[in-house]
Amino acid sequence: MARDRERPSGDALAALPVALDAMGGDKAPAEIVAGARLAADAGIPVVLVGPPELVGDTLGLELVACSEVIAMAEDPAQGVRRKKDSSLVVAAELVRDGRASAMVSAGNTGATMASALLRMGRLPKVTRPCIATPMPRPGRAPAVLVDSGANVECTPAMLVQFAQMGAVYAAQRYGIEAPTTALLSIGEEATKGTPLVKETHALLAGGVPGVDFVGNVEGRDLLDCPADVVVSDGFTGNVALKTAEGALRFAMRLVLGVLGTDEETKAAGEVLLPHLLGASAEIDPEATGGAMLLSVDGVCVISHGSSSQVAIENALRVAHDLAKADLSGRLAERITAPG
Amino acid sequence: MARDRERPSGDALAALPVALDAMGGDKAPAEIVAGARLAADAGIPVVLVGPPELVGDTLGLELVACSEVIAMAEDPAQGVRRKKDSSLVVAAELVRDGRASAMVSAGNTGATMASALLRMGRLPKVTRPCIATPMPRPGRAPAVLVDSGANVECTPAMLVQFAQMGAVYAAQRYGIEAPTTALLSIGEEATKGTPLVKETHALLAGGVPGVDFVGNVEGRDLLDCPADVVVSDGFTGNVALKTAEGALRFAMRLVLGVLGTDEETKAAGEVLLPHLLGASAEIDPEATGGAMLLSVDGVCVISHGSSSQVAIENALRVAHDLAKADLSGRLAERITAPG
Repeated sequence: MARDRERPSGDALAALPVALDAMGGDKAPAEIVAGARLAADAGIPVVLVGPPELVGDTLGLELVACSEVIAMAEDPAQGVRRKKDSSLVVAAELVRDGRASAMVSAGNTGATMASALLRMGRLPKVTRPCIATPMPRPGRAPAVLVDSGANVECTPAMLVQFAQMGAVYAAQRYGIEAPTTALLSIGEEATKGTPLVKETHALLAGGVPGVDFVGNVEGRDLLDCPADVVVSDGFTGNVALKTAEGALRFAMRLVLGVLGTDEETKAAGEVLLPHLLGASAEIDPEATGGAMLLSVDGVCVISHGSSSQVAIENALRVAHDLAKADLSGRLAERITAPG
Repeated sequence: MARDRERPSGDALAALPVALDAMGGDKAPAEIVAGARLAADAGIPVVLVGPPELVGDTLGLELVACSEVIAMAEDPAQGVRRKKDSSLVVAAELVRDGRASAMVSAGNTGATMASALLRMGRLPKVTRPCIATPMPRPGRAPAVLVDSGANVECTPAMLVQFAQMGAVYAAQRYGIEAPTTALLSIGEEATKGTPLVKETHALLAGGVPGVDFVGNVEGRDLLDCPADVVVSDGFTGNVALKTAEGALRFAMRLVLGVLGTDEETKAAGEVLLPHLLGASAEIDPEATGGAMLLSVDGVCVISHGSSSQVAIENALRVAHDLAKADLSGRLAERITAPG
């Protein structure tokens, strides 16, 4: 599959628009279209995809019309199979047909993945796709968690490919020259963890092209992570990602709860709030541009369902930049066949 | 195994001391012995266990002498097999022999578990032990995460028993009258998750004696959890627990980082710090008394390796209270045979 067709590259890719699912996300379409407008104003070419009567005002942006929408809660496989003229499927087709450089959606994650896989195709040698999500490290580039939710069941060979793809992504996206890679487990020792983790540890420790393996990390290392790439199966990775998000939100509520309880704390809160917001902005998922589906022949950004217009603008910028840098070409060069 | 021997109950249990591994924990023995002294001063009977020459000053407390110590990093199974006169094994024997009401250790978790299992024995019908860890819910009793690390590989039948044991524990330890139980997954739908999660969901949804199943929760629900008991395999549970701990610590560093950056924030920090410490004390693992090994015929508290004397005092109090309440008797009554 894929790689046998001609796709634009270099300058041609830079001139192509990013296809944005106008109907994806909790705040679609208004907030999504507003994000597209912000990106376009910043010089990023964008094309909206959606049913014109549902999208409404496109704020002057080009719209590729389609007739269907896959809902947030809809079964991904069924949705993509049945709704061939949905905004997600059409967005993926624009990339496949060389009419868009990349696709972005804040909608149904599974359906976004399925659309991209079925329409753009998979990179050669890749067994399974994975989702790469940035994990904040204040003061430096985020670490990358792969897989953060694409594959509930994994094999050691799949995790090895996730490690390779994660390293390419960390280098391309964040300019980390020689990214280090760790395996998520329940202890640093090679003997700790599930059979999957132990076998993957042995494979990675044995040497894998493009992967600088530094051993296991634990859940407590996920934020401000010592390694640049953290490898996990998609079930554990997704639980860990959501646990970290939930814990940060919990902590923020706890802190805000002590501000403004009386005159004194109210005054102190007014002084500190801007600083706190500054610190939390650095770890805000809104600023990171969203998660990236790796292994498809094209760039596909999966944004958080709650994305604001700023989050969408960032996602479009990341998609545009990585398409220009030919992320999938770089991935294709580095992935080795399993086993 | 177990339950066939005579063990003290009621008033007799209340009069028995809790056996404390004086050599377990990063700050052993000094901090551990200090915690024992605090507990004894508060009316909780305690007996220390350890090699006299290593324990040193017992601060006037009784010491049961032994000759060996299982180190923090030592292989648990080997350690327990080879070091039959270690503080952990001897502490478990004191409970088995009716000379102590419960055991507490902040040492090697695996070796604590192995000692308790081998010496106290397993409750009837229980397939595998599990570790229950409190997850903070400000303003009310913590939720209980089972299993937070005892079993890397689990079957649906094991998770069903963890659910039963978790419910008994939540009721006994926190007085929650009709605890609700949820399953940790990557989505609320019954179709989400690994085969293990989906099969367990089906079993729990089908009705299990003593378990009020309310469906799946995600990682983001682990803190301030809507359910009283959260069930997971020990690998995922341990990753999630450590991720939550790490994220809370990360958030605390972030907040402290903005206090005292200049005169103004320094003054504001001085006002807010006591409030912040008050809020964080409520979610502090030191205050919870540690994790509980469920399924052994006796009470075994596994404290955090970094336990301070206050954490040890709390752990001893919890152990004493639950031994008095005959936790393992309550567990034995409620666990049904798998399948």
